[in-house]
Amino acid sequence: MAEEYLPALEALVLHFKRLPGIGPKSALRMAFALLDFTNEEAQDFASAIINAKENIVPCEICGHICEGARCDICGDDRRDRSVICVVEDSRAVMALEKVREYKGLYHVLGGTISPMDGIGPDELNIKTLLARLDGVDEVIIATNPTIEGETTAMYISKLLKPLGIKTTRLAYGVPVGGDLEYSDEVTLFRAIEGRRDI
Amino acid sequence: MAEEYLPALEALVLHFKRLPGIGPKSALRMAFALLDFTNEEAQDFASAIINAKENIVPCEICGHICEGARCDICGDDRRDRSVICVVEDSRAVMALEKVREYKGLYHVLGGTISPMDGIGPDELNIKTLLARLDGVDEVIIATNPTIEGETTAMYISKLLKPLGIKTTRLAYGVPVGGDLEYSDEVTLFRAIEGRRDI
Repeated sequence: MAEEYLPALEALVLHFKRLPGIGPKSALRMAFALLDFTNEEAQDFASAIINAKENIVPCEICGHICEGARCDICGDDRRDRSVICVVEDSRAVMALEKVREYKGLYHVLGGTISPMDGIGPDELNIKTLLARLDGVDEVIIATNPTIEGETTAMYISKLLKPLGIKTTRLAYGVPVGGDLEYSDEVTLFRAIEGRRDI
Repeated sequence: MAEEYLPALEALVLHFKRLPGIGPKSALRMAFALLDFTNEEAQDFASAIINAKENIVPCEICGHICEGARCDICGDDRRDRSVICVVEDSRAVMALEKVREYKGLYHVLGGTISPMDGIGPDELNIKTLLARLDGVDEVIIATNPTIEGETTAMYISKLLKPLGIKTTRLAYGVPVGGDLEYSDEVTLFRAIEGRRDI
């Protein structure tokens, strides 16, 4: 299919196809939409790509994305420095920040332990986590509830327990507004297991 | 939601959100995927945008996208110059070309008549169609089977009939491989109406 396109269109389609969730048809639709942008809009889009790539870097403390040496959260004196929440990536930080409930710091692992993909503990920001535990009372492990996320959570908790640091994990259960009928069995099992007095 | 992003990330998300079918969550996912591109890949992506926008222009004859003055189809001597297929956009040309059945030329309208959107006949490439009818025996109107596509087809056929040019419309019916049960009533009505001897 792709070989029938104009070279300039094909190049654009190939780039769009590399984005997550974008198949050949969506990529073509996007490329056509882009042709309808004004020259200025297309130029702005291209600049935004270069600019984001050049200026967004990991925070030197926690690994969350930032545009300086350290992120807004690490640089915020009002945050509770005795709690660190460990997450897989910056998207998780942003999701948790939207809740406006958590006031501690974060640590972004940059992935999960996944032997299938050749990612071991050394490929993740685990050493930098161990190096910043001075004055930390609790580490909340908030990796995703997947097999890799669980493996990573177990691995980190085993490293932390001997250090006498309280290690917790986000609660599992039926999502609020969800329907028991549509919850999978593992989630329901965890919801029963983690039941609380009311 | 967006106001909590880094400015460079937010700019990128806003551009992705302008693409068809991309909501805030997909746009954010794409922006993060882009941060994982290498610098060279991001640079290539940005260049592909600029390049496509600068080099892809409408064919001076038919309006189909091309990278020179005229498109490959108009420039191909083997095409039958006595038939013109009128379509809404270049994507329709590409869809029809994939069939490898049609050997005539095309004419890209650049949209459909849509009073709701303030698009009248003068906003479409209709005058350029009327100007290239010398030696043309048949005009196949292949606008989409939507209300706007039908309106546009009717409008053009009324212009062409007094000129003595055979004007045809693509056949409507049940899609091949489709299931009658899932076909809508209008399609079924058209399929019955357009039935043929076997």
